[in-house]
Amino acid sequence: MTTPILLTPGPLTTSARTRQAMLLDWGSWDERFNQLTASVCEQLLAIIDGAHSHHCVPLQGSGTFAVEAAIGTLVPRDGKVLVLINGAYGKRLAKICEVLGRDFSTFETAEDAPTTAADVDRLLHADQAITHVALIHCETSTGILNPLAQIARVVKQHGKRLIVDAMSSFGALPIDAREVPFDALIAASGKCLEGVPGMGFVFADKQALAAAEGNCHSLALDLFDQHAYMARTGQWRFTPPTHVVAALHEALLQYAEEGGLHARHQRYARNCQALLQGMADLGLRSFLPAAIQAPIIVTFHAPQDSRYRFKDFYERVKARGFILYPGKLTQVDTFRVGCIGDVDQAQMRAAVTAIADALHAMHIPLPSIGTPA
Amino acid sequence: MTTPILLTPGPLTTSARTRQAMLLDWGSWDERFNQLTASVCEQLLAIIDGAHSHHCVPLQGSGTFAVEAAIGTLVPRDGKVLVLINGAYGKRLAKICEVLGRDFSTFETAEDAPTTAADVDRLLHADQAITHVALIHCETSTGILNPLAQIARVVKQHGKRLIVDAMSSFGALPIDAREVPFDALIAASGKCLEGVPGMGFVFADKQALAAAEGNCHSLALDLFDQHAYMARTGQWRFTPPTHVVAALHEALLQYAEEGGLHARHQRYARNCQALLQGMADLGLRSFLPAAIQAPIIVTFHAPQDSRYRFKDFYERVKARGFILYPGKLTQVDTFRVGCIGDVDQAQMRAAVTAIADALHAMHIPLPSIGTPA
Ligand SMILES: Cc1ncc(COP(=O)(O)O)c(C=O)c1O
Ligand SMILES: Cc1ncc(COP(=O)(O)O)c(C=O)c1O
Repeated sequence: MTTPILLTPGPLTTSARTRQAMLLDWGSWDERFNQLTASVCEQLLAIIDGAHSHHCVPLQGSGTFAVEAAIGTLVPRDGKVLVLINGAYGKRLAKICEVLGRDFSTFETAEDAPTTAADVDRLLHADQAITHVALIHCETSTGILNPLAQIARVVKQHGKRLIVDAMSSFGALPIDAREVPFDALIAASGKCLEGVPGMGFVFADKQALAAAEGNCHSLALDLFDQHAYMARTGQWRFTPPTHVVAALHEALLQYAEEGGLHARHQRYARNCQALLQGMADLGLRSFLPAAIQAPIIVTFHAPQDSRYRFKDFYERVKARGFILYPGKLTQVDTFRVGCIGDVDQAQMRAAVTAIADALHAMHIPLPSIGTPA
Repeated sequence: MTTPILLTPGPLTTSARTRQAMLLDWGSWDERFNQLTASVCEQLLAIIDGAHSHHCVPLQGSGTFAVEAAIGTLVPRDGKVLVLINGAYGKRLAKICEVLGRDFSTFETAEDAPTTAADVDRLLHADQAITHVALIHCETSTGILNPLAQIARVVKQHGKRLIVDAMSSFGALPIDAREVPFDALIAASGKCLEGVPGMGFVFADKQALAAAEGNCHSLALDLFDQHAYMARTGQWRFTPPTHVVAALHEALLQYAEEGGLHARHQRYARNCQALLQGMADLGLRSFLPAAIQAPIIVTFHAPQDSRYRFKDFYERVKARGFILYPGKLTQVDTFRVGCIGDVDQAQMRAAVTAIADALHAMHIPLPSIGTPA
């Protein structure tokens, strides 16, 4: 059985070359591994042009670990976080603040409504106690894009600090640290960089990080400590996921060879376009209007048919070579299709065909095609 | 250049078969991946005969993340931990309690003196406020073995709870959950199971875990949540390190094929014996007496010679195919050689030869051989 292509927003389909980089064992104390880590951090910083302003602090664990680490390390214990929510990952930011005992307030818009800079301006005027604003760049639960640059500007005008969860957008959507001010921007190995999952990283403003000693509620998640130790020794504080780091290094080389962020963005945009077009041809409606749809993951309305069961649909599409993602909306029945990973337009079109064939086999009529016999 | 053999206590040398298991991408939401996770947990529980009494809760990140998670989840906020220390990892337990704000006291013996059950008995008599005892099974900073079973018995007699960091011993040294009572025992993928690093796991007493809701200081490190979600859905709460899990699964199959714990223990014991014998023949002294030396990692006194520099020695041994580990003692100049990983006696003997050759090339006399020309 051949492995299905993952149309999921991480883990995703990686290149054979990236996976083959895991065929070597590395000593975590060895100079060559230290160089690998340093090279990864340098390449990551280059993507946001952040070498002057930010440190790249890698962290073991999944993306959420890095998000919690950023909040725990960079928000002082007496800080207050304004959490901007339009989906599940925004809610998770609030949950993290709650568990950590950091004061916070939330501002929630509908799942198809981006937070606006005007909202943030108003909220910051209304509550002077807020010290930090936390935002999801691309809210993966729908695929909606929030206006990072505009919001960052407003936050800065108010003299407040910004924490950005850019998990599913970093590497594909442009973010320039010289123009977009933030204290922390968080992403992970297994998303648009097309590495394997197992580590996150935080771009932390150098001054903010230097002032963060003793803030953190956790030893393992303390980015101040993690960075200070790495700056001093070249090593990770605790055993790094060596093979994951090696895979990310190899993935970053391929990222550069492909043409860096611009090329990656273009490929994902083409994937997204092919997907949207193909699904529209089938008569399957996407949840978001095009203007706020990031080329990362697309949410589609499930067919309105009593014979539709996501589980059945999923298995049938999988048997045809593609792994889809369930919807994450509570009100509407949806499913999601990722546009990211080592995939191209032709594969996206093949995925659309697999989806059509699966629905056909389930005797679910497609508006564009009509009821199957 | 061929990859050197890692004689380090994790990451260590894994089999080609284990690494090749990382050549596939897995959907983290997919049923087949859920089965992989369930199979890993089941196999892990079988090693300690713990399926009746304990849950296996896997956690993303390095071993320290799992240790912090165990303490944070299982020690109530008003608990008090007695931390038993005879090396760096014991100190880290205390540091974790400190950062988490859990009350604790420490009992420290010399780095070549195991904590005794009598010590623990006396300490528990003296301080009724103690609720939990935390112990390192094999203190990897020297290789010393602490008497887990005896200490567990005493802790139980006092009606207190035990948390065991068995990171470097689990899978190689026998631990039977039916005979050794503990609330938590912690280990990781990249140690004696010979997987790759990237996840830890905690065997948590079922009742203790059920009572632990809301204890944890962290969202990412909350083992109650992690377990509850996995029990409900079969999935990890946050993106799992899919390739690391697949490698561990493959490593566990090989563990069973080799003959399980007994065979693994025997092989490591033979490795340790070959190492100790070979080094003794060279006149290099080990730091610990044999009776308290675990067959995991051996600390050796550095040669007393002004020409000896660890860095130089390390590079020369590495050029001959073996990666050693620096010492972790503050008072005495030492280096360490691991006995664990996918290595056998012949390779341990070859490592001794590489060490002899490296010292010879450094013009460092070996007592048994005399000054090289
Ligand atoms: C925007 C966003 N934030 C956070 C996360 C959480 O990352 P992880 O599942 O690696 O913990 C994700 C995962 O897809 C995400 O898309
Ligand atoms: C006894 C012990 N505890 C804890 C750890 C920490 O594990 P990690 O480095 O994976 O965080 C180690 C690592 O070797 C260890 O040997």
